[in-house]
Amino acid sequence: MKSIQQLLKEKPWLGWIIFTATVLIVFLLGMLASSIVQRRAEAVFAYTPEVTFSDFEPRNSLWGELFPREYDSYLKTADTTFRSKYNGSAMVDMLQESPRMVVLWAGYLFSRDYGQGRGHYYAIEDIWNTLRTGAPGAGVTSPQPNTCWACKSPDVPRLMNETGAAEFYRGTWETKGSEIINPIGCADCHEAKSMNLRISRPALIEAFESQGRDISKASHQEMRSLVCAQCHVEYYFNKKRTEGVDYLVFPWKNGTSLEEIEKYYDDIEFADWTHALSRAPMLKAQHPDYEVYLTGTHASRGVSCADCHMPFISEGGQKFTDHHLQSPLNNIAASCQVCHREETDKLVQDVYSRQDKIMENRIILETLLVRCHVEAKTAWDKGAGEDQMKDILSDIRKAQWRWDFSAAGHGNSFHSPVETGRIIAGGIAYAQDARVKLARVLAALGENREIPYPDISTKEKAQALIGLDMKKLRDEKKIFLDNVVPEWIRAGKEREAGY
Amino acid sequence: MKSIQQLLKEKPWLGWIIFTATVLIVFLLGMLASSIVQRRAEAVFAYTPEVTFSDFEPRNSLWGELFPREYDSYLKTADTTFRSKYNGSAMVDMLQESPRMVVLWAGYLFSRDYGQGRGHYYAIEDIWNTLRTGAPGAGVTSPQPNTCWACKSPDVPRLMNETGAAEFYRGTWETKGSEIINPIGCADCHEAKSMNLRISRPALIEAFESQGRDISKASHQEMRSLVCAQCHVEYYFNKKRTEGVDYLVFPWKNGTSLEEIEKYYDDIEFADWTHALSRAPMLKAQHPDYEVYLTGTHASRGVSCADCHMPFISEGGQKFTDHHLQSPLNNIAASCQVCHREETDKLVQDVYSRQDKIMENRIILETLLVRCHVEAKTAWDKGAGEDQMKDILSDIRKAQWRWDFSAAGHGNSFHSPVETGRIIAGGIAYAQDARVKLARVLAALGENREIPYPDISTKEKAQALIGLDMKKLRDEKKIFLDNVVPEWIRAGKEREAGY
Repeated sequence: MKSIQQLLKEKPWLGWIIFTATVLIVFLLGMLASSIVQRRAEAVFAYTPEVTFSDFEPRNSLWGELFPREYDSYLKTADTTFRSKYNGSAMVDMLQESPRMVVLWAGYLFSRDYGQGRGHYYAIEDIWNTLRTGAPGAGVTSPQPNTCWACKSPDVPRLMNETGAAEFYRGTWETKGSEIINPIGCADCHEAKSMNLRISRPALIEAFESQGRDISKASHQEMRSLVCAQCHVEYYFNKKRTEGVDYLVFPWKNGTSLEEIEKYYDDIEFADWTHALSRAPMLKAQHPDYEVYLTGTHASRGVSCADCHMPFISEGGQKFTDHHLQSPLNNIAASCQVCHREETDKLVQDVYSRQDKIMENRIILETLLVRCHVEAKTAWDKGAGEDQMKDILSDIRKAQWRWDFSAAGHGNSFHSPVETGRIIAGGIAYAQDARVKLARVLAALGENREIPYPDISTKEKAQALIGLDMKKLRDEKKIFLDNVVPEWIRAGKEREAGY
Repeated sequence: MKSIQQLLKEKPWLGWIIFTATVLIVFLLGMLASSIVQRRAEAVFAYTPEVTFSDFEPRNSLWGELFPREYDSYLKTADTTFRSKYNGSAMVDMLQESPRMVVLWAGYLFSRDYGQGRGHYYAIEDIWNTLRTGAPGAGVTSPQPNTCWACKSPDVPRLMNETGAAEFYRGTWETKGSEIINPIGCADCHEAKSMNLRISRPALIEAFESQGRDISKASHQEMRSLVCAQCHVEYYFNKKRTEGVDYLVFPWKNGTSLEEIEKYYDDIEFADWTHALSRAPMLKAQHPDYEVYLTGTHASRGVSCADCHMPFISEGGQKFTDHHLQSPLNNIAASCQVCHREETDKLVQDVYSRQDKIMENRIILETLLVRCHVEAKTAWDKGAGEDQMKDILSDIRKAQWRWDFSAAGHGNSFHSPVETGRIIAGGIAYAQDARVKLARVLAALGENREIPYPDISTKEKAQALIGLDMKKLRDEKKIFLDNVVPEWIRAGKEREAGY
């Protein structure tokens, strides 16, 4: 065998070929290395901009200048079309979808107006628009306190930082109209300097304290749900904590299950309102999304809200969290399919199937509750006594609490279908218990036939049934939107220009 | 550099070292190859024994001689302890666990005796023992037809092969006592020659035909559930098909959902019995395991019954199906953990949690059904008319059908908790509808107070309430077991010795 030295002596051109090839390979390796370094640089350095504002900066666009990818995706929450079996367009009128709800909420502001929430982008616009905030102006106040702003804007932590939570909540809703103009955004969940997740709302911190827990000990993965749990929870207004203030409280002291929260309310004899037909002391479930999520499989497996609603995506070599908060049904590939190796259609069908099975009995319960309220009203009208009605009203309260807990939570029937099914079944049992007792009370009052089910085939008929003057409410709202809101925006912008 | 030749010339002992090492390595490689070949031989050749018997050989031990691993694991079905939140010991007395069931089945044989099934190994022993088959002998016949043997033994396909299904079903249960002595086993699911899975029972084949499907087209994976679906299904006895015969039929013509089966029964105005208290035309759900399984996630993902209840295990290099049919909770490692990467305790807890949520409302429904039957009986006693009761009895039938469909299926609350929850909620709504109407009927008859809930705190009290003489039934059964059964065994063995 010849040595390489011998070979090169015999064929000197071979040396040039080896030399050229080596040069080429080294050049390509250099390009590869450069590309790797560049991508890392982009990932590590490019997005640690110098933050010039505080944790309480409410303007999302300012944060967006430094975090353009997250901000751009956040802006997509302006798109409100979504995949849904029931209704995929923006701002569904839930009262039109189910006029039964009007009857269930008779005497309560929700019977006026209940629209399916749109994206975070519209938080401020939607709270201006809803008939539930009334039409303040010209000496008229809103029926709602400032507490109703609590979840709508990063202006809230800014103001709370100045005055404390209790003073923030004080007063009727219109008194902070020009202070709160930025929709839910960056400062609601992030620290400015580190961009770490943070809890900006005291209600959640205090809810943890009421359970003897310390939220500052939460892991990053837990925080990826807890920032959502600042708002997507059951809550009530405690009027007893601070004189003249509707103080926001999560009723979690006994735990977060339906029964534990119910016990909390029962123990303090709390009612959101007295029902206009049945006179039952009612509870209004808000949106106990986090509480119900906790009872489901995804929570049990450590999957956070953000894992599905804000999945990781990648752009230009940069992996980041998609801030286009939306139904994961819109984005099966980045959410479900990270874990579930099934086709999109199959996964969507699985969600719809759970929703159908829950919806079927939810509608039964809704219908029974309409009957409860109407039958109870008939009993009162026929001269029933408080003693005769006490147990019945308690049953109605329990039944509707179960219905509302199931219906008000966004996505309950997917997040935890077995628990939601359990709750609805319990609600049906209570509603019907009320009706068995009502049948006896009515018979004793000489009314021993089935009370006719009211014609509530449309929202309008249902609202007329409970005596609402919707035209008046809408006309007043229009005046408010045309006159008051533009002034709020102008004053707010002027204030911000002075920062 | 020195060449190897030069090196060996200088140090000749080096050659010996290389030689010895080579010998050693080649020897070890030989051993490895031999082990591989041996294992393959065991897997491929050792277990294709020559079968000398037909598809209708009922003696499991004969098959077991050729398939010792499968047979040994089958014999473990004699062990009836299992992991369960509710009761982990053998042969749970369900009527003692829930005396409400005695009232629900008043007028039907199940009110006498309902034990949780033990392993396949005990199929024959258990059907001798149950009070539901009565105490035939000395001119007394069983209250059951031969159809009740249909799922108990590989003697069944043997006999059906001789006479056809209809003639097999003809006659009362005791007339085949000496013919059917081998418990559920090999021939129920396997062909003898190929060991392929086979459908040995005509009812399932005919059920497929009623849906316009051909079961012979089923895939192997489907067969791993369908062999179970020969028995673990809802069925009834059609008396109209063949004169004098209780013909076994699966009511699947419209589909296998609760509502589709209910429609099938309603359309033919079928009732299993008339309730002794309420006089409602009742349906008895058998064990719709397969039907409910079809609605669950595991079925949707293509997981068969055998995948969890008969997982693959390996012994001596041979992979085979564990024929120790049992709750997968006893064998999490080989069943659940093949797909689910969670700890055993966590997975068990997940199952229990689903069961708890379903059980809660199942008990509510059970209790409401007791009230329905007792209130309806009171109405009849007070002189209610057929017209007044018709709708009520229909509601009771529907409500109890939903309860039984949920309760009778083994493992429904795990196999498909959302569907089972849906069904129970519907049952509660119907039961309470009946009670609202009953309250009005009773009030019209002068009875406008709550009918007291009966004292059924024990099985004995419940059985006394519905007028059963349990001592007599048990004494008669003892005489049957002491005198008739030994003769059946003797005659059966003698017959088999003649094969």
